[in-house]
Amino acid sequence: MFADTLDTVLATSPTLMRRPRLTSASAPLTRDIAVVNEFGEQSSVAIPAERDLTVYVDKRELVTLMTLGAHPEWLVLGYLLNQRLVTSIDEIESVTVDWEVGAAAVTTRRGIERIEERTARRVVTTGCGQGSVFGGLMDEIDRIVLPPEAVLRQSELYRIVNAIRLKESTYKSAGSVHACALFDGDQLQLFVEDVGRHNAVDTIAGWMALQYPQVPPARRVFYTTGRLTSEMVIKAAQMQVPVVVSRSGITQMGQEVAQRVGLCAVGRATHTRFLCFANPHRLLHDAVPPLQTVRSPQD
Amino acid sequence: MFADTLDTVLATSPTLMRRPRLTSASAPLTRDIAVVNEFGEQSSVAIPAERDLTVYVDKRELVTLMTLGAHPEWLVLGYLLNQRLVTSIDEIESVTVDWEVGAAAVTTRRGIERIEERTARRVVTTGCGQGSVFGGLMDEIDRIVLPPEAVLRQSELYRIVNAIRLKESTYKSAGSVHACALFDGDQLQLFVEDVGRHNAVDTIAGWMALQYPQVPPARRVFYTTGRLTSEMVIKAAQMQVPVVVSRSGITQMGQEVAQRVGLCAVGRATHTRFLCFANPHRLLHDAVPPLQTVRSPQD
Repeated sequence: MFADTLDTVLATSPTLMRRPRLTSASAPLTRDIAVVNEFGEQSSVAIPAERDLTVYVDKRELVTLMTLGAHPEWLVLGYLLNQRLVTSIDEIESVTVDWEVGAAAVTTRRGIERIEERTARRVVTTGCGQGSVFGGLMDEIDRIVLPPEAVLRQSELYRIVNAIRLKESTYKSAGSVHACALFDGDQLQLFVEDVGRHNAVDTIAGWMALQYPQVPPARRVFYTTGRLTSEMVIKAAQMQVPVVVSRSGITQMGQEVAQRVGLCAVGRATHTRFLCFANPHRLLHDAVPPLQTVRSPQD
Repeated sequence: MFADTLDTVLATSPTLMRRPRLTSASAPLTRDIAVVNEFGEQSSVAIPAERDLTVYVDKRELVTLMTLGAHPEWLVLGYLLNQRLVTSIDEIESVTVDWEVGAAAVTTRRGIERIEERTARRVVTTGCGQGSVFGGLMDEIDRIVLPPEAVLRQSELYRIVNAIRLKESTYKSAGSVHACALFDGDQLQLFVEDVGRHNAVDTIAGWMALQYPQVPPARRVFYTTGRLTSEMVIKAAQMQVPVVVSRSGITQMGQEVAQRVGLCAVGRATHTRFLCFANPHRLLHDAVPPLQTVRSPQD
């Protein structure tokens, strides 16, 4: 599916000449290790890779990301976008990832203004934090306008949850990774896993920026296995995604930001069950299940 | 239990005069919000708080932590210790937390040398990352020596898992938080929850630093609901904890660091099941369960 999409881009993108040159570095996503179980038996299990990728922008060290390593180039693009260090990928000339040295070399066309200053402030975020310029993000929240017409049908929600359930994944084989996915309505566009869940979001942001045409904002639905923390909600909003679905719950600030920005936040989504934590007016109950179900507060 | 422990400290600590003055700021840990479920029914559920706490060291802004807010003073102490900004709490004169303004004012006795330089390098870690000086931590790993005599009995492991299972918690009432706990053998010393799981670890580090006498390193067992990522393992090692137990799995770098530093890493620990991912020689199988059990790779 990636290949087709990229072919489409290459064939149709008017900004083709401005698209960054990307390597396609790959590395094993899991590794088998010897374990001992409760019976004292030795066996082998797969565990997810966790690699350090140090990002250099115009030869200046910016940050080190700990990642599964599935899509490092999209991750770096998305990180730069979501950190507001670039406003468009047109500003990026190339991203060159080399797993041998765990480095991603980013070349910009005109440099990044005031990069020291803009990367100075650190915030340790709740989820798999990005040390991101959170204050800056909060300031921008009120300027974000999500498409008012965007809605999620309960039937679409169920198809989304089911599509995730059926996905072959590193999680199923090795556990210990988070998954995020972008949907166009109930159609899966991209499924990304990472040991750091914000890396998965950033990877999707990087991929989205490369697409032409883009999924219309009103049809964007974002799925995450992780909790809906403030930063997850803010990132979805700044990615112009009006509906977010999570297998997990939500934190107070995540809920407040979602309410404030008009984002429909659905959590605890498993099988036919879910809770809408914010902006339920965007949710159309067209597929109410037959029987009452029992829910535990735990996720 | 906290009260007793602190009384003991006050009564017996020879470094009493050097203990930092701490506020005991408190704030609600959960909040009830209105939700809509899969039947279109409105109801109310509790969600965990998520607060931004900006840490100022000698009036200089250092970092903003997103936290549940249960033990902010211990969190700040532990953060400064685990980030290697102070080597002992003797260097701290006071920590004053004010939730009204979301600020923690730290006063040091002699200032922190080269603080700009030492907080310059950012790493986005896999778990609930700390933007910590990860490179520096890795460099120090080989200098860490964990007590060679430390072992974990399977019977102790089961008592630990059961003690956590029985604990009343924000997780049970609101979900979406991680728990960490410090044990002396199988005796629970401190149970901490936070929306950011590294905050929970740092809170335990801060609390440990205030104790006198301390739990002997050879008897320290650390429990976390979170994954054993590289940074979780490194933090445990630098806290002189030789055994770590997780409900979840482990990442490749977490496993490699645990193996390298001689830390016994036990994961997927639920009921009678578990997998030992590193240094199984520290594990004594004194309570092998009767029946073979089935395990899924998922956590």
